Amino acid sequence: MVTWLILAIVAGLISLGVAVWLYFWVHRQDPGTEKAQEVASWIRDGAKTYLRRLYTALTLVAIALGIVIAVVFSFDIGHIGMGDIDVSVSRGITMALSFILGAVCSAIAGYMGMTVAVAANVRSATAANVNLNKAFKVAFYAGSVMGLAMVGLAIIGMSSVYWITRDPEIVLGFSFGASALALLAKAGGGIYTKTADIAADLVGKVEVGIPEDDPRNPAVVADNVGDNVGDVAGMGADIFDSYVASTVAVMLLGASVFAGDQMMQVKYTVFPLILCTLGIVASLIGIQFVRVGKDGKPGPALNRGTIFTCAILAVFVIILVLAGGYNLGVLWATLAGLVTGVVIGLTSDYFTSTDYKPVIETARVSTSGAAINIITGFSYGLVSIVPSIIGIVVATLLSYFLSEAAGFSGIYGVGISAVGMLAVSGMIVSSDAYGPIVDNARGIAEMAGMSQEVIDTADVLDAAGNTAKAITKGFSISAAALTVLALFAAYAEVIESRGIALTISLRDPIVVAGVLLGAMTPPLFSALTMLAVTNNAFDMIEEIRTQFREHPGILAGTELPDYAKCVGLAAEGALSSLVMPALLAVVFPILVGIVLGPEALGGFLGGSIFTGVIFALLMSNAGGLWDNAKKYIETGEFGGVGSDAHKAGVVGDTVGDPFKDTAGPSLNTLITVMSLVSSLFAPIIAAFHLF
Amino acid sequence: MVTWLILAIVAGLISLGVAVWLYFWVHRQDPGTEKAQEVASWIRDGAKTYLRRLYTALTLVAIALGIVIAVVFSFDIGHIGMGDIDVSVSRGITMALSFILGAVCSAIAGYMGMTVAVAANVRSATAANVNLNKAFKVAFYAGSVMGLAMVGLAIIGMSSVYWITRDPEIVLGFSFGASALALLAKAGGGIYTKTADIAADLVGKVEVGIPEDDPRNPAVVADNVGDNVGDVAGMGADIFDSYVASTVAVMLLGASVFAGDQMMQVKYTVFPLILCTLGIVASLIGIQFVRVGKDGKPGPALNRGTIFTCAILAVFVIILVLAGGYNLGVLWATLAGLVTGVVIGLTSDYFTSTDYKPVIETARVSTSGAAINIITGFSYGLVSIVPSIIGIVVATLLSYFLSEAAGFSGIYGVGISAVGMLAVSGMIVSSDAYGPIVDNARGIAEMAGMSQEVIDTADVLDAAGNTAKAITKGFSISAAALTVLALFAAYAEVIESRGIALTISLRDPIVVAGVLLGAMTPPLFSALTMLAVTNNAFDMIEEIRTQFREHPGILAGTELPDYAKCVGLAAEGALSSLVMPALLAVVFPILVGIVLGPEALGGFLGGSIFTGVIFALLMSNAGGLWDNAKKYIETGEFGGVGSDAHKAGVVGDTVGDPFKDTAGPSLNTLITVMSLVSSLFAPIIAAFHLF
Repeated sequence: MVTWLILAIVAGLISLGVAVWLYFWVHRQDPGTEKAQEVASWIRDGAKTYLRRLYTALTLVAIALGIVIAVVFSFDIGHIGMGDIDVSVSRGITMALSFILGAVCSAIAGYMGMTVAVAANVRSATAANVNLNKAFKVAFYAGSVMGLAMVGLAIIGMSSVYWITRDPEIVLGFSFGASALALLAKAGGGIYTKTADIAADLVGKVEVGIPEDDPRNPAVVADNVGDNVGDVAGMGADIFDSYVASTVAVMLLGASVFAGDQMMQVKYTVFPLILCTLGIVASLIGIQFVRVGKDGKPGPALNRGTIFTCAILAVFVIILVLAGGYNLGVLWATLAGLVTGVVIGLTSDYFTSTDYKPVIETARVSTSGAAINIITGFSYGLVSIVPSIIGIVVATLLSYFLSEAAGFSGIYGVGISAVGMLAVSGMIVSSDAYGPIVDNARGIAEMAGMSQEVIDTADVLDAAGNTAKAITKGFSISAAALTVLALFAAYAEVIESRGIALTISLRDPIVVAGVLLGAMTPPLFSALTMLAVTNNAFDMIEEIRTQFREHPGILAGTELPDYAKCVGLAAEGALSSLVMPALLAVVFPILVGIVLGPEALGGFLGGSIFTGVIFALLMSNAGGLWDNAKKYIETGEFGGVGSDAHKAGVVGDTVGDPFKDTAGPSLNTLITVMSLVSSLFAPIIAAFHLF
Repeated sequence: MVTWLILAIVAGLISLGVAVWLYFWVHRQDPGTEKAQEVASWIRDGAKTYLRRLYTALTLVAIALGIVIAVVFSFDIGHIGMGDIDVSVSRGITMALSFILGAVCSAIAGYMGMTVAVAANVRSATAANVNLNKAFKVAFYAGSVMGLAMVGLAIIGMSSVYWITRDPEIVLGFSFGASALALLAKAGGGIYTKTADIAADLVGKVEVGIPEDDPRNPAVVADNVGDNVGDVAGMGADIFDSYVASTVAVMLLGASVFAGDQMMQVKYTVFPLILCTLGIVASLIGIQFVRVGKDGKPGPALNRGTIFTCAILAVFVIILVLAGGYNLGVLWATLAGLVTGVVIGLTSDYFTSTDYKPVIETARVSTSGAAINIITGFSYGLVSIVPSIIGIVVATLLSYFLSEAAGFSGIYGVGISAVGMLAVSGMIVSSDAYGPIVDNARGIAEMAGMSQEVIDTADVLDAAGNTAKAITKGFSISAAALTVLALFAAYAEVIESRGIALTISLRDPIVVAGVLLGAMTPPLFSALTMLAVTNNAFDMIEEIRTQFREHPGILAGTELPDYAKCVGLAAEGALSSLVMPALLAVVFPILVGIVLGPEALGGFLGGSIFTGVIFALLMSNAGGLWDNAKKYIETGEFGGVGSDAHKAGVVGDTVGDPFKDTAGPSLNTLITVMSLVSSLFAPIIAAFHLF
């Protein structure tokens, strides 16, 4: 077993090493003209300012939570079933350190991803002057820094903590640290980016009629900073958190399901770490396949990389299972996870691509105004839930029953299907982080006054990012659903290991009460983050209008707007809006558990998963659909730019912005955090229940 | 027991008698000027045409379903637990007849309500010429025709079927008949009304700039017809269905929970019918209190009626329980239901009234455009879920645990709290049907060119309808939630009575699969109905534009538009859009039960309840909020009529239309129908499971 842990750490170090190498490679590329560098420096400084403030706030939160954890876990509740409570300060401190380590790893990955992204944007734009291939390479390798750093740090962290403590519950602390940070980074970044985006668009494009990314717009820098803090740092933290949580959930399941047989127990507790190790190797190989082919299309290049990585991992797992004497069930489960991830990604593409009916129909009805556009897009968003839910159901049932049929633990199989999906995260994050980088490159090209040819190249690169996003979103949402199902099982195991039989029956009204409370949490969380966006955007709109009014030179192009003021407004707004959502995620589950008991908390987690997945799918897909319906009209259909249909399309796009970039993607992290909090504090809740 | 059944039928007959008397009273009122009568006749004819088509289609559906039921239930599956199947054709035919009776009763109530509504609208408008009080009385008494006919027919039907068969499962057939009809009437009416409303507004108000209800608009008649078929007939069928379903669910629970003691069994099987009887008497008294006071405000008059009716019923129940030797648990449960209904109604008022922050804030941000208005309104809609869900949770837990504490069946208590809430439906429907009648009266006043004073009076009456709607919606949604929780319990009892132990545990992946499939059904159903609205509205918009283009005399006021064409388009569109939603409601649950088993179907029902309630609350409240935000701007705030804020408000209002009048209110009926189908076909599903 120790051999595997060493291999895992080595793989993590290699991954991290490649990330560092690519980091410097990107920085060695041509940083472009002086003008371009100046524009890029505004974005870089804005992003760094926000990150500094965010991490300062997060450090305080992490220390406070760490102290709480250290105190609470000093009461060695592992023994509570036997009726006596030992006080073990060392366990409390270990748990707190593990928690802080998780938060720190997540933060470092986010920070590396961000700093390379704000260096890569201008370099990619500059390279677009040479050719598309070069520009693509810069952006994708920069994205890979994030992807590889993330998986590397995660596996090093989890393996070391487990190696030292041999206790998967302590690794749960690591996971909670990573997720707590992810939630704040994701929600904060999501609020930031859409505040700036909406304000910039509404005043810039709609009111005064200047184009996207026009340097006369005081919010343009904040908007581009937002792409980085929201999409790069936030999204990376998001997948980091699912990646770690699914692995830990399966480690916990391995430790409890096979508790009767020590050899089996160790074997299957470590197995998810092995799967991650193989996934890292597969990603390192898969990244080599990401090259723009002779057709000059970057979209297929990204998808090719993802599919190759999955295929390579599948081969690895077949060899591992056959050679290592693992049960065939884990093989079926891994394959079920990988196939489902790809299938869900491709079907969700149907609802957001300009090639199919939903987007075209939404664009068509836009000729009758904004309201019809909204209703139609929202309705297709609701329909888009169906294939993904069926996919998740099929993956759950397949991995469960194929594992059972192989004489194995079904619920362990469900967890493995999630880990199987997420094992390729190194590759997934690399393609996903590519998107905002080229989006930014386009912005810089525009602001720095580069040629139309460069802007066109940037547009092609940008469109490819959106296609890749569909598949990675399919992965991340379905993986999150399977992860929380595994965490849900882990929660039940932790409670039962404390000597409490746990039946979470829907015929029990306490459970139904829990489910209803859990089910309302994701919609409430979405509302809080979206209201934060509109409130902050409203303030920023006032600021932009004031600047235009008081400094007529700005619009004339003779005076530089005060970018920093908008950057500051966005940052302050985002950070101060995080308090309520964070309390909801961390305190509410514990409260439900203590007041209504562990069965109700089980129902609560179930309810939050059901609506969490549904709202995440609805919001992500509807948002993407509106975005592309507008873009479709902009290609000249139904009247093209400037027509009434286009105005309606812009309204839909703006509504979709916080749907797809603020509320939707935070929901994965929300349900993960709530499941982790519940599992982590399960012993405490069980203790309340016993007294 | 027979005495109680006789009393129930007598109360039903009295209620029906009063309804008939009021029906003729309304018809005796002054039908107004020739012009007004002509306008009213367009609406009446349009409504009757639609109803004729709808009922023709429904007759075919009812006969087809009746035959299926007769065949399926001829296999006496009650004996299946013993391994042999008797063929009992008489049971099959009885069940089919009960089903058809339910459908017929629901149809008659809807038809009476509709015909009186289309007679009352013009009479109320004419009376507004005299004074507000008179106009109010005409409209409210017309609404009472619907309310009293409905509860009268329901209790007569249920009591007779039970008296003849002594089998609550046969009464379930009656309930299914009522609900199947309700679903089609509600969804069809909802699609009809919003198709016409949106099309009329978008071309009339937005494109050519003529006011609401202008007779030059070709869709104006269809719009007013829609208010009747959607709000009067559809809503009546909706509450009819919850009313019957909750009563039947508790009858089933009474029969199974107390199966060990025959006296108790009979007593508590009949109890819900007694509660309904008392509720009818209370409503008949409560209606007397609905008088506009000296302040001249009709809104408080309606709410006073509701609250007095609740209080009277509470007194009745206290006497009944103490004198009749019933367990105190049913008293607590009834009170919990009544109080929760009122509280939920009042809190939902917070989110939709122009007096509080959500509406004002949504109006304020409208100054920044339609997109921000949509995001803000939608977010408050999400927040509005919270108090209602907490109310439902509290009502469930209170009625459960107070009943248990009284040494009684907790789950029976939950059912009673739903029946308690719905027992006052006679009063609730009366105030609710009042709304569309005065809305129509306003339309007729405008179209018939009555004086501004009359229109102002009609406006006051209309606004009161909206306030009343908030409380009745709170009742209907929370009652539907408690009803389906009781039906859910009834489903489990029916399955267990066939000798299958049913554990619906969230730790079982088959159950989780069922929950996920069930949870996605309400959003999918909403999407199908809303897409039907936008598709049909799109066609009607084309028709209106064509009429304006080809007959310039219409806009000049010299030529009458072709109203009938728009009426026909709306009717055809609505009816043909019902096929998919209906199949989803009836076939999907049976399919899940047969393929995945009774546990999965249990999970499915649970999942559909959770998201059904959440989406119903979201859509109803967000829709009401947008509507009132627009009205708030129209009072002169934030720029008033014609300002940019107003344009944004109109977009929000239009988006909210199908939310609050098509998709939202159909969801109650959807989850009831799915629960009823499952309970009714539970023996068949159990049989599949046993072989």
